[in-house]
Amino acid sequence: MSKFTFFGGKGGVGKTTVSAAFGVRSANAGDETLLVSTDPAHSTSDVFGQSFGDTPTQVTGYDGLSAMEIDPDAEVEAHLQGIRKQMAEQVSQVVVNEIDRQIEMAHNTPGAYEAALFDRLIHVMREESAPFDRVVFDTAPTGGTLRLLSLPEFLGDWVDRLVEKRQQSLDRYEMAAIGDTEPRVDAETDPIIARLRERKERFAFAGRTLREDAVFYLVCNPDELSVAETRRAVEHLRSHDLAVAGLVVNKLTPEPDPEEDGTGARYLRERCAREHERVEEVETTFSVPVVARIAARSGEITADVLDEVATELPVRPPSA
Amino acid sequence: MSKFTFFGGKGGVGKTTVSAAFGVRSANAGDETLLVSTDPAHSTSDVFGQSFGDTPTQVTGYDGLSAMEIDPDAEVEAHLQGIRKQMAEQVSQVVVNEIDRQIEMAHNTPGAYEAALFDRLIHVMREESAPFDRVVFDTAPTGGTLRLLSLPEFLGDWVDRLVEKRQQSLDRYEMAAIGDTEPRVDAETDPIIARLRERKERFAFAGRTLREDAVFYLVCNPDELSVAETRRAVEHLRSHDLAVAGLVVNKLTPEPDPEEDGTGARYLRERCAREHERVEEVETTFSVPVVARIAARSGEITADVLDEVATELPVRPPSA
Repeated sequence: MSKFTFFGGKGGVGKTTVSAAFGVRSANAGDETLLVSTDPAHSTSDVFGQSFGDTPTQVTGYDGLSAMEIDPDAEVEAHLQGIRKQMAEQVSQVVVNEIDRQIEMAHNTPGAYEAALFDRLIHVMREESAPFDRVVFDTAPTGGTLRLLSLPEFLGDWVDRLVEKRQQSLDRYEMAAIGDTEPRVDAETDPIIARLRERKERFAFAGRTLREDAVFYLVCNPDELSVAETRRAVEHLRSHDLAVAGLVVNKLTPEPDPEEDGTGARYLRERCAREHERVEEVETTFSVPVVARIAARSGEITADVLDEVATELPVRPPSA
Repeated sequence: MSKFTFFGGKGGVGKTTVSAAFGVRSANAGDETLLVSTDPAHSTSDVFGQSFGDTPTQVTGYDGLSAMEIDPDAEVEAHLQGIRKQMAEQVSQVVVNEIDRQIEMAHNTPGAYEAALFDRLIHVMREESAPFDRVVFDTAPTGGTLRLLSLPEFLGDWVDRLVEKRQQSLDRYEMAAIGDTEPRVDAETDPIIARLRERKERFAFAGRTLREDAVFYLVCNPDELSVAETRRAVEHLRSHDLAVAGLVVNKLTPEPDPEEDGTGARYLRERCAREHERVEEVETTFSVPVVARIAARSGEITADVLDEVATELPVRPPSA
């Protein structure tokens, strides 16, 4: 069994609900499960009527299920503060002021949000995940984040050459400044080199884990726009060697009872017919199977409907 | 009456349908109307069952209504080709190759798409709009595009100082190269200066027109995500001195007939109740009035439902 399960998809399709339901099902199946939500609206807390924070907490009433909520904004802030602090230790005050300005600008780029969140997810995969059999994320890497996965290959040679050059420059500096013939500072202990090596190693871990120990599902809704976006997401993940195991079609309009008649029933039947066509299109034109079909709920999603949603979800991925 | 009407909102909320309906209503009211669609799915062509391209074309069966469809991808391509060509005339081949690489990269940035589309919209406002009383766009400037509106102020002083410096350098070059005491090349005719002046003037026109001769509506759906996004869009437009005249709530679930009963009717009634709450929230917490409430359609949107949708839309903006 793969340890990590990701539910990706555009905002609003219902990733958080589907992930929570899957977490419940996984725990019920006997797997010690951690549910990780990155939804800024904290809907995992709403679903279970219990407040979750940045560390895994047992979900009351659900044996074997823990949950945590990551606040992406706080992560961006912490991430940039970390960069600032590290830089401040290595460069002069003038440079620090300039870096501050750059960081302020970087704060507002969409890439910063993604990168910080991805860093946090990698941390969860390495650290917080240890005591669990399965970890469920209500997000999947997208766009620029996926590009970070190819970083280790690019960084590989470059870091090696950099170490060499840095060693030479350290040697000369030492010899010039101190007059020793044997330098005492070593590139192996240089903080900048260490940071580059650490980054390279971190993304290499992420790439390996996502490719070898993770399952990806995409959640979509039965409308044209969502289907088109999902098609792009499947291709995009594939182009980074990440295979989508299945699609979850969420928010299907429920069929009226057979004897129902009138404006409302006619509306629902026509709508269902169109959504049917859409799902059929997905089934016949996507290279990825539809693994679950979930009906729309009219009310607020709370824990009592999760079991119902969960029965639709496969706790073991299909052998595609 | 303002000449330009913009319908903004996130993808999928129904901007194109609402714009088409508004165009029909405007033409029926006796105003010579041009409908401009930027929807890459060409849904304006689908709605009217008639193919539209990049130039205004009379809509068959609708007196006083013309339509055009702008292909944003083609615009990005043309825009970048234009930059490439212009650069090639002014710099060496080595620099051109480097620029080519940069342009290839720029092609994939979301900003390029927005900027190219905005350039095209400005062109429509200046040129194609001339024979019409009213021009309806199924998009509104967002994000980075809005920032372009403040460009003229920033460019103002900078261009003036640049002209001065460029004139000095041209003078010296002429004197050194030719030995004349009176230079013959003039900053006034310099192509780089001309290009900067043209840009400054173009965005100044856009800012003026959007502030003084345009009406903005935002289309949203009665769900939490759409309402939150609309709230941000209103604020964002306001921060650039663009006032939203009204909100159009689209895709409201239709109420079942009073005598209907059963699973379907219960689902619809609960859904309607939630959407009602959402609309009430919009009405009480937004500083912008809801000017239209439009019911969801179960089928493909075609011209025959446009009149029905149009009756909901105010052809004159409310005096907010």
